[in-house]
Amino acid sequence: MFAERLQSAAVAAHSLVCVGLDPELEKLPSELRAEREPFYAFGRRIVDATFDIAAAYKPNIAFYSALGKEEELAASIRYIRERAPRALVILDAKRGDIGNTALAYAREVFDRYGADAATVNPYMGEDSVLPFLVRPDRGAVLLCRTSNPGARDFQDLLVEGRPLYARVAEHAATHWNRRENLMLAVGATYPDELAELRRAHPDLWFLVLGIGAQGGDLDRTLSAGLDARGSGVLINSSRALIYAGGGTSEAIRGAAAALRDAINSAREARARG
Amino acid sequence: MFAERLQSAAVAAHSLVCVGLDPELEKLPSELRAEREPFYAFGRRIVDATFDIAAAYKPNIAFYSALGKEEELAASIRYIRERAPRALVILDAKRGDIGNTALAYAREVFDRYGADAATVNPYMGEDSVLPFLVRPDRGAVLLCRTSNPGARDFQDLLVEGRPLYARVAEHAATHWNRRENLMLAVGATYPDELAELRRAHPDLWFLVLGIGAQGGDLDRTLSAGLDARGSGVLINSSRALIYAGGGTSEAIRGAAAALRDAINSAREARARG
Repeated sequence: MFAERLQSAAVAAHSLVCVGLDPELEKLPSELRAEREPFYAFGRRIVDATFDIAAAYKPNIAFYSALGKEEELAASIRYIRERAPRALVILDAKRGDIGNTALAYAREVFDRYGADAATVNPYMGEDSVLPFLVRPDRGAVLLCRTSNPGARDFQDLLVEGRPLYARVAEHAATHWNRRENLMLAVGATYPDELAELRRAHPDLWFLVLGIGAQGGDLDRTLSAGLDARGSGVLINSSRALIYAGGGTSEAIRGAAAALRDAINSAREARARG
Repeated sequence: MFAERLQSAAVAAHSLVCVGLDPELEKLPSELRAEREPFYAFGRRIVDATFDIAAAYKPNIAFYSALGKEEELAASIRYIRERAPRALVILDAKRGDIGNTALAYAREVFDRYGADAATVNPYMGEDSVLPFLVRPDRGAVLLCRTSNPGARDFQDLLVEGRPLYARVAEHAATHWNRRENLMLAVGATYPDELAELRRAHPDLWFLVLGIGAQGGDLDRTLSAGLDARGSGVLINSSRALIYAGGGTSEAIRGAAAALRDAINSAREARARG
């Protein structure tokens, strides 16, 4: 169910673009900063500009929670549902806790916010991840090899000759993906690692983070990450996209369309051989 | 600064008890369930019953967020400040993200909720942890060896012959604890691991989770975890304490006092012998 929704979102939009919502008050276009609900107003602007381009949206809850703007997050997700009913909503929350606490987090993500998936941290293991995978129409995006410098501290440590992140991916794919609703989060800043993960997991969907603002290279990312059918990755862009041209509708739409087209050109070139 | 506050909280209360606030609607005493702000009412009851027994309080944000009760969490923390001004407030949020997102999470924990510390997940490494450690009067409780069954999946994997959690502890103690405001979260269900961590880190404070409801044994935990001065651990109890006797004030106070006394007896026995 989840896998089909993901597939059909990408096909319907003819796009692998995931639009990240990272609203920060200081960066907001000045005319929106004065609104009563500035993050919701900015969310509407982004969705209006990208509704037919985005296969998925990824709001990052940290920016809303820092300022007590949970209601603006919920309203933004409802607005995505109205304007882009086939797009997936991935709540970037990096959750990870156990037992009854994990259930509470899953309720927050799926019931309170109505998201389709959440980013989840693997460190606490199975009982912290499965609560996000029991609903066949919802899913989890498991942190695997992230795009930040600190990712090296533990994710790259060798366990029986292989890096920990590869072990996380293998364990998750083998034990936790019975409903085909598990994705891996991988940083665009590490295309070699991405290629290796693709070889090991030809059928998993990846959420690729760090294109744009964090310096990931799009072509190398795609040649490393696309699956045999020229799909299987969502390419997320947050800051480089939503603050394009100072955050005007035209600039946001232009940046999203350019990203979609660049990805699709690479897919077509690859399909041609 | 943080270390001194922790120390003086424990000395002032003559207690190493950390009271966990895990409010769940179904489990709440029935007379509180009907209140307009049931989680805040329950929080007040717990704090009134334990204000002179608790060295720290650990509200778990998941239970509040699942139901949109952030304001009741904020009010509960303000109430702790009034009634138990020396007790530390550790927000159990298991946060972990990078760069500007980590800063947003730190703002949520420290500025919005006014907590003294947060639980933090190590998987994403340095740039996800340091934003919680830059303020000398605030701190982070880093997940190390947790108390749940899934902890085995990755935390116990061997890296150069030692388990990953030991590597996490060493890396954190060596590189991230310049301001002495880093604690480790360790499960009471694994006393051997706790003893080993104490040997390796004689001066770190540990937050011990899983006493009570999760089956951790108090005496083994204390003999494994106490430092040379008979201190250095906070023993958390959540469900076993706040739902004692169905959640009456008397039963909560009785359970908290019994835990404090059992801990102090073990400390005294150790000091004598």
